[in-house]
Amino acid sequence: MSEGDNPPLAAATLARVRESFARQTMMATFAARIVDIGPGFCRLAAPIVPGARQQQGFGHAALTFGLGDSAAGYAALTLMDEGIEVLTVEMKVNLLAPAAGARLVAEGRVVRAGRRLTVVTAEVRADGRAVALLQGTMIAVPAAG
Amino acid sequence: MSEGDNPPLAAATLARVRESFARQTMMATFAARIVDIGPGFCRLAAPIVPGARQQQGFGHAALTFGLGDSAAGYAALTLMDEGIEVLTVEMKVNLLAPAAGARLVAEGRVVRAGRRLTVVTAEVRADGRAVALLQGTMIAVPAAG
Amino acid sequence: MSEGDNPPLAAATLARVRESFARQTMMATFAARIVDIGPGFCRLAAPIVPGARQQQGFGHAALTFGLGDSAAGYAALTLMDEGIEVLTVEMKVNLLAPAAGARLVAEGRVVRAGRRLTVVTAEVRADGRAVALLQGTMIAVPAAG
Amino acid sequence: MSEGDNPPLAAATLARVRESFARQTMMATFAARIVDIGPGFCRLAAPIVPGARQQQGFGHAALTFGLGDSAAGYAALTLMDEGIEVLTVEMKVNLLAPAAGARLVAEGRVVRAGRRLTVVTAEVRADGRAVALLQGTMIAVPAAG
Repeated sequence: MSEGDNPPLAAATLARVRESFARQTMMATFAARIVDIGPGFCRLAAPIVPGARQQQGFGHAALTFGLGDSAAGYAALTLMDEGIEVLTVEMKVNLLAPAAGARLVAEGRVVRAGRRLTVVTAEVRADGRAVALLQGTMIAVPAAG
Repeated sequence: MSEGDNPPLAAATLARVRESFARQTMMATFAARIVDIGPGFCRLAAPIVPGARQQQGFGHAALTFGLGDSAAGYAALTLMDEGIEVLTVEMKVNLLAPAAGARLVAEGRVVRAGRRLTVVTAEVRADGRAVALLQGTMIAVPAAG
Repeated sequence: MSEGDNPPLAAATLARVRESFARQTMMATFAARIVDIGPGFCRLAAPIVPGARQQQGFGHAALTFGLGDSAAGYAALTLMDEGIEVLTVEMKVNLLAPAAGARLVAEGRVVRAGRRLTVVTAEVRADGRAVALLQGTMIAVPAAG
Repeated sequence: MSEGDNPPLAAATLARVRESFARQTMMATFAARIVDIGPGFCRLAAPIVPGARQQQGFGHAALTFGLGDSAAGYAALTLMDEGIEVLTVEMKVNLLAPAAGARLVAEGRVVRAGRRLTVVTAEVRADGRAVALLQGTMIAVPAAG
């Protein structure tokens, strides 16, 4: 994991994000990993795995959506306090082009962070080409346990 | 596959839907199957598989979205001519409750079928309880090959 | 105002809705009025006024959206306690057909009422024909003053 | 009308946009005008007129939505051929803050221009502060007449 151009996260925040991400078996099924993260920002990358295709062999909308949604959610989580989890309230995706190629990269960004609700966007690219744009709302909830 | 209360599809249409669905490896990964289908209607069912969870152990939004999106897409495909495939233009999901439980059912319906664009909705339930509502647009494209 | 098929609202709730609606100058500009209301339900009607047209002379998307959004918002408000106002968090509209004709009717419904967030849908018809479908989220906030 | 930082439009395109905008009586009711335009870009400005308020006295969601939607639509129209009109297929708005203040500015941008469908975004600011984010789809249709 590299923090790229973004200011670094506090170590505790980074640990919380990593731990939450590791619990998402969906991300493991998608072979996704966090490749960059900073305050209000998260970038995921994943191969287009054989088990996540649509009928024409391109990446399924569930894959594109899932990566964008998770990138946006973890972007939101970076701005939240300890003991808080983030859940998706709603999310809209516009699919710009087929998810063709070998590798997807999803970049999530916080547009407006509120106390409870955070507005986020995400862009998903396939081999560098934009394939999806997402816009939605995340909610902060107390972490269980 | 049972056609339930819905009028039956023409055999050729049903065959096209089944064949397209079978090519979606994402649906196999989700262990999803078509449990009811009719003109402008499609119902999918799937267990919440271990590999499609979010950080709290509930079904991931990508799973919920993916089932709703596919149910809506195949609902649209039932009204399209031979040689036509359906792709998602855009889809919005409101998550109503955690996808808790054992089994998801997604019902997709056509709201308005146009020559190119079809407006669809879908509802996803977990063990009978509504967990997501989707609304979006499908586009008819010539099938490859 | 008639309550139609819907169970009647408590008089105090109806008074709150009417008072809030009367303060919306946008609704007066659109010549809109509440024609039916009940718990979790609100129906508005409005002529397609000359000052709310798009470039082809049909009702503007802002009119269709505004009526659907307000119908959905007041549907949500019927289920909220005294001293609470409702605001739109996000709303998505699919436009099904041009808003042609003389009169729009917008029906808003609550899909899931939470303590803070309420998921709503609305349908807008022009002279009886469906022209728009909306799906969104309302938030309960303390009323000012 | 000034073209600001954006490359200038062909005179014929600019004339088409101006003529279409002038036919939208909704924009006149909102006292909106085009303040900047270029290829794939359109900025509108409008006072928050007394007749477009919600129940708390802020700009109504229909106003915010309408300006964002029109800015996005005219951004799309700048990239379309003569004899083509643009209509909204679907649009989603996230409201970030109340539309408080004196003046709204809406900036629409083309994200991806297709032959029929164009994906757009818009941001609306009130007195310089972001109050809404829109993401949607426009469709090119033959102009009537």
